[in-house]
Amino acid sequence: MKRNRKSKQPPSRKVGLPPGSLVHVGEVKIDRPVISLIEYDDLGLVERQFESVDDAYGYKPTHERLWLNVHGLHDAEMMAEVGRRFGLHPLAMEDILNTHQRPKIDDYGDYLFLVLRIFAYDESNHSLQSDQLSMIIGKHFVLTFQERVQGIFQPVRERLRAARSPMRQNGTDYLAYALLDTVVDRYFLSVDRLGDDAENLEDEALNRPSPALLSRINQAKHETLQMRRAVWPLREVVASMQRPENAFFKPETRLYLRDIHDHTLHIIESLDGVRELLGDLLDIYLSSVSNRLNVEVRTLTVLSMLFMPATLIAGVFGMNFHDMPLLAEKDGFWISMLMMAACALFMGGLFWRRQWLKRNAG
Amino acid sequence: MKRNRKSKQPPSRKVGLPPGSLVHVGEVKIDRPVISLIEYDDLGLVERQFESVDDAYGYKPTHERLWLNVHGLHDAEMMAEVGRRFGLHPLAMEDILNTHQRPKIDDYGDYLFLVLRIFAYDESNHSLQSDQLSMIIGKHFVLTFQERVQGIFQPVRERLRAARSPMRQNGTDYLAYALLDTVVDRYFLSVDRLGDDAENLEDEALNRPSPALLSRINQAKHETLQMRRAVWPLREVVASMQRPENAFFKPETRLYLRDIHDHTLHIIESLDGVRELLGDLLDIYLSSVSNRLNVEVRTLTVLSMLFMPATLIAGVFGMNFHDMPLLAEKDGFWISMLMMAACALFMGGLFWRRQWLKRNAG
Amino acid sequence: MKRNRKSKQPPSRKVGLPPGSLVHVGEVKIDRPVISLIEYDDLGLVERQFESVDDAYGYKPTHERLWLNVHGLHDAEMMAEVGRRFGLHPLAMEDILNTHQRPKIDDYGDYLFLVLRIFAYDESNHSLQSDQLSMIIGKHFVLTFQERVQGIFQPVRERLRAARSPMRQNGTDYLAYALLDTVVDRYFLSVDRLGDDAENLEDEALNRPSPALLSRINQAKHETLQMRRAVWPLREVVASMQRPENAFFKPETRLYLRDIHDHTLHIIESLDGVRELLGDLLDIYLSSVSNRLNVEVRTLTVLSMLFMPATLIAGVFGMNFHDMPLLAEKDGFWISMLMMAACALFMGGLFWRRQWLKRNAG
Amino acid sequence: MKRNRKSKQPPSRKVGLPPGSLVHVGEVKIDRPVISLIEYDDLGLVERQFESVDDAYGYKPTHERLWLNVHGLHDAEMMAEVGRRFGLHPLAMEDILNTHQRPKIDDYGDYLFLVLRIFAYDESNHSLQSDQLSMIIGKHFVLTFQERVQGIFQPVRERLRAARSPMRQNGTDYLAYALLDTVVDRYFLSVDRLGDDAENLEDEALNRPSPALLSRINQAKHETLQMRRAVWPLREVVASMQRPENAFFKPETRLYLRDIHDHTLHIIESLDGVRELLGDLLDIYLSSVSNRLNVEVRTLTVLSMLFMPATLIAGVFGMNFHDMPLLAEKDGFWISMLMMAACALFMGGLFWRRQWLKRNAG
Amino acid sequence: MKRNRKSKQPPSRKVGLPPGSLVHVGEVKIDRPVISLIEYDDLGLVERQFESVDDAYGYKPTHERLWLNVHGLHDAEMMAEVGRRFGLHPLAMEDILNTHQRPKIDDYGDYLFLVLRIFAYDESNHSLQSDQLSMIIGKHFVLTFQERVQGIFQPVRERLRAARSPMRQNGTDYLAYALLDTVVDRYFLSVDRLGDDAENLEDEALNRPSPALLSRINQAKHETLQMRRAVWPLREVVASMQRPENAFFKPETRLYLRDIHDHTLHIIESLDGVRELLGDLLDIYLSSVSNRLNVEVRTLTVLSMLFMPATLIAGVFGMNFHDMPLLAEKDGFWISMLMMAACALFMGGLFWRRQWLKRNAG
Repeated sequence: MKRNRKSKQPPSRKVGLPPGSLVHVGEVKIDRPVISLIEYDDLGLVERQFESVDDAYGYKPTHERLWLNVHGLHDAEMMAEVGRRFGLHPLAMEDILNTHQRPKIDDYGDYLFLVLRIFAYDESNHSLQSDQLSMIIGKHFVLTFQERVQGIFQPVRERLRAARSPMRQNGTDYLAYALLDTVVDRYFLSVDRLGDDAENLEDEALNRPSPALLSRINQAKHETLQMRRAVWPLREVVASMQRPENAFFKPETRLYLRDIHDHTLHIIESLDGVRELLGDLLDIYLSSVSNRLNVEVRTLTVLSMLFMPATLIAGVFGMNFHDMPLLAEKDGFWISMLMMAACALFMGGLFWRRQWLKRNAG
Repeated sequence: MKRNRKSKQPPSRKVGLPPGSLVHVGEVKIDRPVISLIEYDDLGLVERQFESVDDAYGYKPTHERLWLNVHGLHDAEMMAEVGRRFGLHPLAMEDILNTHQRPKIDDYGDYLFLVLRIFAYDESNHSLQSDQLSMIIGKHFVLTFQERVQGIFQPVRERLRAARSPMRQNGTDYLAYALLDTVVDRYFLSVDRLGDDAENLEDEALNRPSPALLSRINQAKHETLQMRRAVWPLREVVASMQRPENAFFKPETRLYLRDIHDHTLHIIESLDGVRELLGDLLDIYLSSVSNRLNVEVRTLTVLSMLFMPATLIAGVFGMNFHDMPLLAEKDGFWISMLMMAACALFMGGLFWRRQWLKRNAG
Repeated sequence: MKRNRKSKQPPSRKVGLPPGSLVHVGEVKIDRPVISLIEYDDLGLVERQFESVDDAYGYKPTHERLWLNVHGLHDAEMMAEVGRRFGLHPLAMEDILNTHQRPKIDDYGDYLFLVLRIFAYDESNHSLQSDQLSMIIGKHFVLTFQERVQGIFQPVRERLRAARSPMRQNGTDYLAYALLDTVVDRYFLSVDRLGDDAENLEDEALNRPSPALLSRINQAKHETLQMRRAVWPLREVVASMQRPENAFFKPETRLYLRDIHDHTLHIIESLDGVRELLGDLLDIYLSSVSNRLNVEVRTLTVLSMLFMPATLIAGVFGMNFHDMPLLAEKDGFWISMLMMAACALFMGGLFWRRQWLKRNAG
Repeated sequence: MKRNRKSKQPPSRKVGLPPGSLVHVGEVKIDRPVISLIEYDDLGLVERQFESVDDAYGYKPTHERLWLNVHGLHDAEMMAEVGRRFGLHPLAMEDILNTHQRPKIDDYGDYLFLVLRIFAYDESNHSLQSDQLSMIIGKHFVLTFQERVQGIFQPVRERLRAARSPMRQNGTDYLAYALLDTVVDRYFLSVDRLGDDAENLEDEALNRPSPALLSRINQAKHETLQMRRAVWPLREVVASMQRPENAFFKPETRLYLRDIHDHTLHIIESLDGVRELLGDLLDIYLSSVSNRLNVEVRTLTVLSMLFMPATLIAGVFGMNFHDMPLLAEKDGFWISMLMMAACALFMGGLFWRRQWLKRNAG
Repeated sequence: MKRNRKSKQPPSRKVGLPPGSLVHVGEVKIDRPVISLIEYDDLGLVERQFESVDDAYGYKPTHERLWLNVHGLHDAEMMAEVGRRFGLHPLAMEDILNTHQRPKIDDYGDYLFLVLRIFAYDESNHSLQSDQLSMIIGKHFVLTFQERVQGIFQPVRERLRAARSPMRQNGTDYLAYALLDTVVDRYFLSVDRLGDDAENLEDEALNRPSPALLSRINQAKHETLQMRRAVWPLREVVASMQRPENAFFKPETRLYLRDIHDHTLHIIESLDGVRELLGDLLDIYLSSVSNRLNVEVRTLTVLSMLFMPATLIAGVFGMNFHDMPLLAEKDGFWISMLMMAACALFMGGLFWRRQWLKRNAG
């Protein structure tokens, strides 16, 4: 009955610590953190990978724009080094490390700090996994921080490698847009899986109600709510990125953000549809259980009906009248047996035709 | 149990492609795309049809205002050509081709881009079909893009052909208004069908509850929600077209838009009425199934009651008292039989009058 | 099961016609249209009636202020003439004739155009009738258009005839206020009837549940919703009339409009109370039906219990022991009969005291 | 089943009368109206009482500030005189006399006009009584109008009589604040009684469900709603009094109004808690009734079970086998009787232990 | 059935008293009030404790910044002295002493006045305790008032003692932030306990429904609502502290407040999740009780079925046919007994396999 309630867990290790301390709060989902870095401009592109702070020692960027992606957040030293290099505020660093953030956008003047959630549907146990994605958008760099390797940004990397792609021509704001677009597009997949789950649950609630179902209904509700909570604030986030006073996005890119905003609304509406479906499931389940019981009682009552005429006939021929038909006949007993069987069959047939022996209602 | 969930399907073929790629996302609903073009001004009107890019080669418009309508969106080359001729932004082109858009209005400076949904009630399977209608409103042209031929704009064409109609005198903003008005007017028909469906479902839920009904109730809910989602953002769309700073609509035409705004509100209210009706249906259905079972158990109990006095009488005359009435009489047996029958008939009559043998409750 | 759904019917005859065409859309509720006209100022008052366009030929007003009321809207020629005389915009004319409008206020510069709904409770079939009232408020004239003669403005007419009434001293804005006040005051009557109906329905749902009740509950819900839809936009309408930039109402009159605004809120709150009451009715009805069935099954079970001891006693005296009491006694049989009756009476009394033979639950 | 629905009654006597006519609309709750007057400033205080217009003839105030309180509103002449003396607008007078007003604040320039509702819990029939309190706040006077004598302002009078109390030092705005504070503080008492009622009803619904309970639940819902409607607009009223542009309240007093605003929010939240509790009561009641029926059917079924083995034993010893045990024994009959009793006792004990003979479920 | 409803209790002792009187309203939760004081700046820190007014006589602060914490509020003299020393407004003092305040922020010009609620989960009776925390934030001092010693600010004290902590470097606004952060972080713990409780209740509702559960469900609902009421206004409070025009918080500190704002939203969302879970519990409980009854009736019906074939067989062999099988056989009686047992076993086995003898449904 215990449910996966990661999102509810408080940043408990932090209580009592001074704010801004660099402690990773959350599950460790990867063994060794990996930093992958792409430098690029319209002229060229360089890719590098670091696995520790030492790797990056003495490294100097050679192109105008830079995208640094971190997989795994629990190497405090490495994270501190990244924060130092890019001049990130302690609060931003703390939020990156604490993976229980609500999606939000914070403007730190020199850069925008974005928190999003990525969802992946785990086929093995039909549940939704949620990771935090933090993004720092500066004038010349984009930093992304993920809890583990999921490969969702692979297509963006491919497009970046293509020499003449618009992504190379445009600034880091376009790169940030492309990353955000990829994340939001993936939400559609998760919403679809939630929708399929809800329909399967409805099927089962109607046809095979079992107590275990109830906790699965609750889990589905919980996941839908969890996803809604992750997408709902995104509306605001994207809207604030679109505003003209936001200096990080060029007017051309803002046009593209409008598209993401539409998708966000679309996802929220679909989630609300799933929630409505799930909302009815409890009633359907409860009434389905109750109906099955009633159907069983009906079947039992029908069965007991079949004995009634036979019992009456036996009683009749057990009466002590001096003058009774059949009693003296040779096959009297068997005739009475036949009468009993005939009555039972007749009634059984009657009930069969009225479908009162079926195993489901209605 | 699988429901038509087109609207939930994500623009899945797009994931990973660079934004702005011209790929048709959605069902192909027509064999060959057709472009029909009407040029007009107060002096005259010319109509033409193109079935391929070649047809239109070297074509030059001769009148001031132009309405181009495309049926079928999957001919990428043709679509690209249209986009090039009218200088449409890649994002607009992408949205036209991806038929899973939410209704919206985007101002691209030189033209307005509108996305709407058209609804058609399919009589054969009592379900609502939804197509996307994209509209580009420029100073001198209106472009409309539909997924298939439905003939909904036929009356507008007729009015345009009438030499002295206000449509010929007025600009493309009036044409756009007329097209929008036609679309919104058709919503009323769909809302009505949904309302009729809801009432039929209520009838069936009360009188002929069956598990199949449940999925039909869900489908009706889904369709109502889907339609509401299509009409709800239209409010905003029309409101933004009415604003004085919107340069595409003349003040005279804005007066007419007010009318469309009222109709939109009217439709939303009607849809909410239908939804309220549907919301109760689940309870009615579930309780109707349960009542039918209870009525059947009542009937069975009544039937079993009829045997009780007869069985008692048989028991009584089976007692072994030395001195008992009737036993020695010649017709004693038949008299006891008559007593049994009389008791059963009497009780049956009693229950009949109390209406406990009826097949429905209450 | 078919319900009166007038309000949902679309302006269907209009589909395809150019906007602004003068076609009456809606039920014809009166035989012959009548125009009654009152001219007045502080000095005098003249009343006239026209039944056709010809009657009014060459007519010239002689007083400063004018109130023209039209009963019946289907005489297209007469309506067109009225529109022409007062310079009404085609869209306003169209809205007057199409009696399925949502309440609204449109400012046409020279005059305000108001649409309201009038409600009348039809005692014969306990249903709410709804008519459209259109009002044109100009600087020197007020025009009102009703679907039929209802006499609701009779008190206003009386007050107007009184030479020294404030209505004569004040401008047409005060007249418009008085008419509006009369309409809103009548809403209270309808709300009260709806409230009474809801309470009667609750009574019946508890004590005499029948399938017919369900459709009456639905009708009551529908009517309450319909009335709420008519009053809800009125809030906005009256609020916009109160605004200082509204040039049609003098500051003194605006003070009075505040009162109407309060009444509107009051009515909405009362309607929401009725809706809450109705919202529970479905549950009460469904559970009432179910309880009646259960009570009947309880009664049947009690009855069947009465036979049990008798049947057992009969069985006991039917045993074949060689040595049994009573069997040989002369009145043994009758003593056994008495035992049976005594047992049945004892149990019956027991159940009676526990109130298990009552016809209702609890 | 008829409920106290005073608040829904329309100002029905007014329909048709010109607005602003001085007619008392509402119940007459007191025999003779009484006017009590307190004149005061920091130097002294004079109290007087008038029972008719004549009493006040020639009366001239001698202190700077004045509080006039009227109990009973049906003496039209007296009310008119009060209105004349203080220059009250006819609309304000009309609202004072019509005791079905919604709480509101109207700014008439020279004075503020406030309408509130006072609630009193009537212990005798566990119902909430609601009276209207109208307040006129001028620069130098405060007028209060109540439907009957309730003594709620007694503490304010006491404080006013104390020579050095802040109330004497401060202006009429502070007096108005003190009166308002007293009214709002009393709301807490009523909310508490409603909360206690709701909990008692829940107790009864669980343990002693009876049809009468349903109407009491409805009454409690209605009263909670009625109170919420009276407190909800108060939020707005107090907020508008706090605004800097409101010239009637000095900045020092505005600080105190903030407190009343907080209390108002507190009361609304408590009321919403009560409403939530009441909202579940219908479900609890309905299911409690249904469970009691089911428990009774269970008891009956258990009872009928007790007869089954005895009936079988009687049948067995009634069989006609030539060779059967016990039949020939002297105490055979009594042994069979013992067997029957033993079986019944054994089964009864079994059911007793499983608690299937208890009178409540669970 | 009586629930802990402290929060609903009105400031009843205050009714009738002049506003601003220093009377402690609420439970006394501690024996002797204790004042602990920390003076600090970047150079040093001094801690002192006072247990009465006399202790503090002649005390003069020696450092720039000061944090004074009061545990226990019922020593009127001590409180008055504190108020006098720091120049607190009578209204603020009154609100500190009345521990039934709604969370709020009041700007008194020289200082901010904050009211919060602290929650502690009492393990002994699974209920949530709520205390009031009042905070005065001045330019050079922070005052905190608690109802009892809970030690929640211990970590803040520790950090303050550390000579080089940012808390010593920063002003009182940072201290206020740290205190607020501590309070909000603790909310997460309470929310988690409420969530666990809700899941346990669901378990019990499904498996061990008992009437006592219902009141526990209500208590849990009440506590969740109570906590939501305490956190909801905090949103506004923190938002208003973040505004640039708020002079008490430096821009650097405002950045940190953004974090608290996010946490507040997070808590509200979690609470809403818990409420949704609790909202379904009533339905689950009610239907669980009903199902258990139905399962018991099913079991009884199954048991009664087992007797039916035996009773029929006994009846058959009790018939008086002259020529019947088995009757004359030596072991006839025992064969018939075997037949009865066989039938009962066969039917019992059948029902067992269909799981109709299980003690739970489905």
